[in-house]
Amino acid sequence: MENKKNQVNQNSAPIGIFDSGVGGLTVAREVMRNIPLERIVYFGDTARVPYGSKSKETIVRYSRQIIRFLMTQGVKAIVVACNTASAFALEEVKKEIEIPIIGVVQPGAKVACAATRNKKIGVIGTEGTVRSQIYTKVIQEWDPKIEVIGKACPLFVPLVEEGWLKDPVTDEVAYRYLKEIKEKNIDTLILGCTHYPLLRSTVQKVMGENVTLVNPAYETALELKNLLYQHKLENRGDGGEKELKYQFFVSDAADKFKQFANSILPYDIETTKQINIEEF
Amino acid sequence: MENKKNQVNQNSAPIGIFDSGVGGLTVAREVMRNIPLERIVYFGDTARVPYGSKSKETIVRYSRQIIRFLMTQGVKAIVVACNTASAFALEEVKKEIEIPIIGVVQPGAKVACAATRNKKIGVIGTEGTVRSQIYTKVIQEWDPKIEVIGKACPLFVPLVEEGWLKDPVTDEVAYRYLKEIKEKNIDTLILGCTHYPLLRSTVQKVMGENVTLVNPAYETALELKNLLYQHKLENRGDGGEKELKYQFFVSDAADKFKQFANSILPYDIETTKQINIEEF
Repeated sequence: MENKKNQVNQNSAPIGIFDSGVGGLTVAREVMRNIPLERIVYFGDTARVPYGSKSKETIVRYSRQIIRFLMTQGVKAIVVACNTASAFALEEVKKEIEIPIIGVVQPGAKVACAATRNKKIGVIGTEGTVRSQIYTKVIQEWDPKIEVIGKACPLFVPLVEEGWLKDPVTDEVAYRYLKEIKEKNIDTLILGCTHYPLLRSTVQKVMGENVTLVNPAYETALELKNLLYQHKLENRGDGGEKELKYQFFVSDAADKFKQFANSILPYDIETTKQINIEEF
Repeated sequence: MENKKNQVNQNSAPIGIFDSGVGGLTVAREVMRNIPLERIVYFGDTARVPYGSKSKETIVRYSRQIIRFLMTQGVKAIVVACNTASAFALEEVKKEIEIPIIGVVQPGAKVACAATRNKKIGVIGTEGTVRSQIYTKVIQEWDPKIEVIGKACPLFVPLVEEGWLKDPVTDEVAYRYLKEIKEKNIDTLILGCTHYPLLRSTVQKVMGENVTLVNPAYETALELKNLLYQHKLENRGDGGEKELKYQFFVSDAADKFKQFANSILPYDIETTKQINIEEF
């Protein structure tokens, strides 16, 4: 009886999702769409955003603090919804916790491998993600014959945050960043930063219709669904209904976060709580 | 005797200069040029950059940590070489320390007041600086008749960090950001972010030759020189010669910082030390 009860409690526990800021909301959005019964505790590290230009050591320290915070919220599984943190910290922190944890890199890489026909995959992301060559490592573990061409696009995140999504400036920046990988004749392109799905139409226009764009946010939601099933951790909707379904925490500027979140989520956030993440 | 020795020690102590990252190096550069006998301890908070989009509360906490670190380095005076931190934290932290401390806002504002003829001053900066209206407050304390028009330019910092200083994309972004304040017929424009002097020629081109650009970094170096003289704290070059003249500390990614610093300073940085600022 006790075990069954604990199991129910565990099943109705939330998923912890974290990112350096607002970008991971594209992952939260896919979880809401694809596993609608699951509760979510989202943490955006808005005080220390961006992660893309920071060192591995710093990103590992930040990820540990955030995981300690998420554990205080009783999460049953964690999604590292940030490509940089997935690249730098996932392997380290995986050894240190007992609940399932996944990043966005493996699911995105797996689908790109399945999609490519000419075995040439492009990856765009922050400087940190591209320099880490994490997608190359993961992809070549599956198929060493696949060539992976990475390109950092540091202006994409500030352009998205400025709201210039369909804009001649963004078109020109995209054209310049993507020129090099376009000439390499890739047939599949991974949107290796959680902000980039918001630039999907610009990127598709520049790359042309024959290039398949892979959105790791979507693939991660499907992988999470599978993982919860394997661990018998799915929320069946039979407990915890009194709790808030989606909760949002940030390390700074909660109002600004809420505004951005409400512009991209299929759901209106009512409150966002600010915490001091350095205390965890 | 003892007093005289202490005075010599204090005179040969370094100036502490801090910024959210590399931007404050434009202030360090002006100090090197204009007060060449002074030693400098520079701290760039590269782990938590940018400050421009963060809240006042967070910026005050960060500034306190950095000042505690600079005090461990025996600095005799501090320059807050960051417009956002000058706007949000200077008044708070001034009460808490005994050595002289100045920011970049007052010196820039003072010179702009002297320069304007039609009493219309523009201020460009980060979102935090513009939203704080700090330049407006300071300028209108001196002359309530001056109209101050602010405009946030969030893409300027990433464009500078990307190195696109003379570039059609930067021209187009500048044209779009500055259109509004240009139409207001200002005759003086404050470059209210330490990165912006690096875009000086682009901004001058867009605004036209009749608009006077004010670089607070330069004005701050002159004000510092004056302040040291008033407090009898000038380095006369008669002590401490064995110490390193210029020292650089960062909270992350020391190599990248060094590379940027060497591209803008009239001097080659040899080493940059990384510290964990959250411990202070």
